[in-house]
Amino acid sequence: MPSSARFTGLQTVDVRFPTSRTLDGSDAMNPDPDYSAAYVMVETDGTGGLTGLTGHGFAFTIGRGNDIMSAAIGALRDHVVGLPVEEVLGDMGAFWRLLAHDAQLRWLGPEKGVMHMAIGAVVNAVWDLKAKREGRPLWKVLADLAPEQLVALVDFRYLTDALTPAEALELLTRAAEGKARREAQLLADGYPAYTTSPGWLGYSDDKMVRLAKDAVAHGFRQIKLKVGADTAMDVHRMRLARDTVGPDIAVAVDANQRWDVATAIEAIGALAPFSPAWIEEPTSPDDILGHAAIRRAVAPLRIATGEHVHNRVIFKQMLQAGSLDVLQLDATRVAGVNENIAILLLAAKFGIPVCPHAGGVGLSELVQHLAMFDFIAVSGTLENRMIEYAGHLHEHFTQPAVVKNGRYLAPLAPGFSAQMLDQTLVDYAFPTGVTWAE
Amino acid sequence: MPSSARFTGLQTVDVRFPTSRTLDGSDAMNPDPDYSAAYVMVETDGTGGLTGLTGHGFAFTIGRGNDIMSAAIGALRDHVVGLPVEEVLGDMGAFWRLLAHDAQLRWLGPEKGVMHMAIGAVVNAVWDLKAKREGRPLWKVLADLAPEQLVALVDFRYLTDALTPAEALELLTRAAEGKARREAQLLADGYPAYTTSPGWLGYSDDKMVRLAKDAVAHGFRQIKLKVGADTAMDVHRMRLARDTVGPDIAVAVDANQRWDVATAIEAIGALAPFSPAWIEEPTSPDDILGHAAIRRAVAPLRIATGEHVHNRVIFKQMLQAGSLDVLQLDATRVAGVNENIAILLLAAKFGIPVCPHAGGVGLSELVQHLAMFDFIAVSGTLENRMIEYAGHLHEHFTQPAVVKNGRYLAPLAPGFSAQMLDQTLVDYAFPTGVTWAE
Repeated sequence: MPSSARFTGLQTVDVRFPTSRTLDGSDAMNPDPDYSAAYVMVETDGTGGLTGLTGHGFAFTIGRGNDIMSAAIGALRDHVVGLPVEEVLGDMGAFWRLLAHDAQLRWLGPEKGVMHMAIGAVVNAVWDLKAKREGRPLWKVLADLAPEQLVALVDFRYLTDALTPAEALELLTRAAEGKARREAQLLADGYPAYTTSPGWLGYSDDKMVRLAKDAVAHGFRQIKLKVGADTAMDVHRMRLARDTVGPDIAVAVDANQRWDVATAIEAIGALAPFSPAWIEEPTSPDDILGHAAIRRAVAPLRIATGEHVHNRVIFKQMLQAGSLDVLQLDATRVAGVNENIAILLLAAKFGIPVCPHAGGVGLSELVQHLAMFDFIAVSGTLENRMIEYAGHLHEHFTQPAVVKNGRYLAPLAPGFSAQMLDQTLVDYAFPTGVTWAE
Repeated sequence: MPSSARFTGLQTVDVRFPTSRTLDGSDAMNPDPDYSAAYVMVETDGTGGLTGLTGHGFAFTIGRGNDIMSAAIGALRDHVVGLPVEEVLGDMGAFWRLLAHDAQLRWLGPEKGVMHMAIGAVVNAVWDLKAKREGRPLWKVLADLAPEQLVALVDFRYLTDALTPAEALELLTRAAEGKARREAQLLADGYPAYTTSPGWLGYSDDKMVRLAKDAVAHGFRQIKLKVGADTAMDVHRMRLARDTVGPDIAVAVDANQRWDVATAIEAIGALAPFSPAWIEEPTSPDDILGHAAIRRAVAPLRIATGEHVHNRVIFKQMLQAGSLDVLQLDATRVAGVNENIAILLLAAKFGIPVCPHAGGVGLSELVQHLAMFDFIAVSGTLENRMIEYAGHLHEHFTQPAVVKNGRYLAPLAPGFSAQMLDQTLVDYAFPTGVTWAE
């Protein structure tokens, strides 16, 4: 029976967690983040499949400015309310273009920063709704789409010099073979994770060592350290970490954009004796050519970036220019699931592994779906691939990501795992919630 | 006498002009803009030199989203209010870093989109204040700074692989010779302009032809046409324009990002017989490598871009990669005067002429100061340089830009020419002003 359901509301909540009080999440560029979510609920009337009357989404920020992000999401209310639900869910490519191609809003980017992230939050909320109504986790919804349907989700504008719709279709059609086998493997074994929990810059040596041992004991095969504030201190911490975990556990480092090209090459040289698994965000996320120059200079050490790369056009060029060895997409930096499918397709075309950015709040919950979809239906491989994990703030979600023995278990609940607990939305609302009133 | 003045307030006004009613400003990407300004006034107490108690600035947008931009500007209130005025005005480089390096707000970009433009509006308002207090137009304030002082205004982070502080100092020191002569020349003859007024995409053939004749009669040596919606129509309009103005008047075209790389090369090929002076925004403003590929393919035709280039790091790469022949900086896209000085220095280092983006609302008023400063103290030349001009909305400013016989006259009033009439701020306030209540 065709539904006459409509989108009836779009509500935002400015949710902030006081993480700066414990220096969880501290790094060389971001010394005192308050992990936050500009949270959105898209509401519908009528009947909603298994659980699907409301879709949940958010943009991750680190504190100040979460109100601006919430306002930007709220500005999309008139774009959404009144639309027919089934029509939107049946053509998510058209819905994406409806938001991303609004000429007046596009001027605020274009396709970058606050407005683009706001579009991503709404797009992701509608994907959450779609998956809930279909009664399946998002990774499964995406993996079950036909190659033609996946291609229709992607805006190929500005991509065709690197990837045409026809090439994408061919790539997805090739990858369709073996999908059932890979899905079974995923359900049985999960998806590899690595952890950043030991490595925050504000942690003492003792705390870092203790957490690094914990990580290995819990089955992680890679940890990550924040670096970039001071090279001598970075070398000290890297040696300490290497001594703690031994030669068989990978230790990646993350400079959080602190270096210029020449300083990056020098600092990476100082860390090279300790065999870092990759060097993440050595410089500005906008610096395609800078990343390429650094990568050439430090090879065979590997360069990773992506959590601040603002759209598919920058990723396209990073792949064209040879800027990276590891592509770290982010679930809430670009304009949602659709744009991340474009990014997964680009990465597959260029043969570059995707290891999504997580940490923050709720990023693990979201990116696991994208990585698992990639494994089943796009790249078809786990080689050199893993998802970041940090142990905080999962308790605020109705379906928290589950990592066991160093691997993400495939989420089975319907939706995009984006929904926070009702009580969290009350207690951590800024500035009215009890956490902030204290 | 040292002043104890403080910043006491930061007020925003959401100002919108209903330009979509007449299709002024229409182009292939932006069919119905309502030219708008997220307007800001920074207020001080104490004494204010000639006129300097309040600084005025704004970010230009095209309608929807101007409220988000205004909110982002308002979010900077706590960064500004309470600061000592003379200390801020005496170290504008430090003030820029105070805003641009706020780690939590930086997450919203970094250095791009709504938050970066909001910082630009506030930075520009404080420059307006500084120039008013000094009793001089901004171009003169900047031109009179010593090379060391100019270098101190610039954040060289992420630039040093292309331009070091030492190189910038050398460049400015070389350019200091002849400053007085060039200033006299500027005051006598003004700065060359070209006009976009005839070429908006929504205009009829008759209107375009009439306005093109007007432009030539008023002394302009270059006009610009919007293209990109339909190549056959573009060729028709280009032929009509060329027939109207003859071979001696330059006709530039502006595609407003409508093309992919291959379609750009094809469409430019169709326009080539009519000798376009430049091809502007052929593709995504993020596509450094795409612009470079297009430029190589269509040489010796010239590629122009910049009005949507979001910061100095992208411009740096466009210069490194050979992406452009003409750099079109924008006064309110990047983070204000300081970042535009960085961009002028980069352009001078690479020998690329700067022809600023204007049109919109108030952009002529602002960019004239930057171009005139560039002529006197940075590039030292007018060769291949001109400032865009469009004839609308100047009447809303207390010191409108004046173009006579195809040249901008150097503004002489103190400040950055950014101040709107009090009545405009009332009548065009959205949605309460009389214009929108109608």
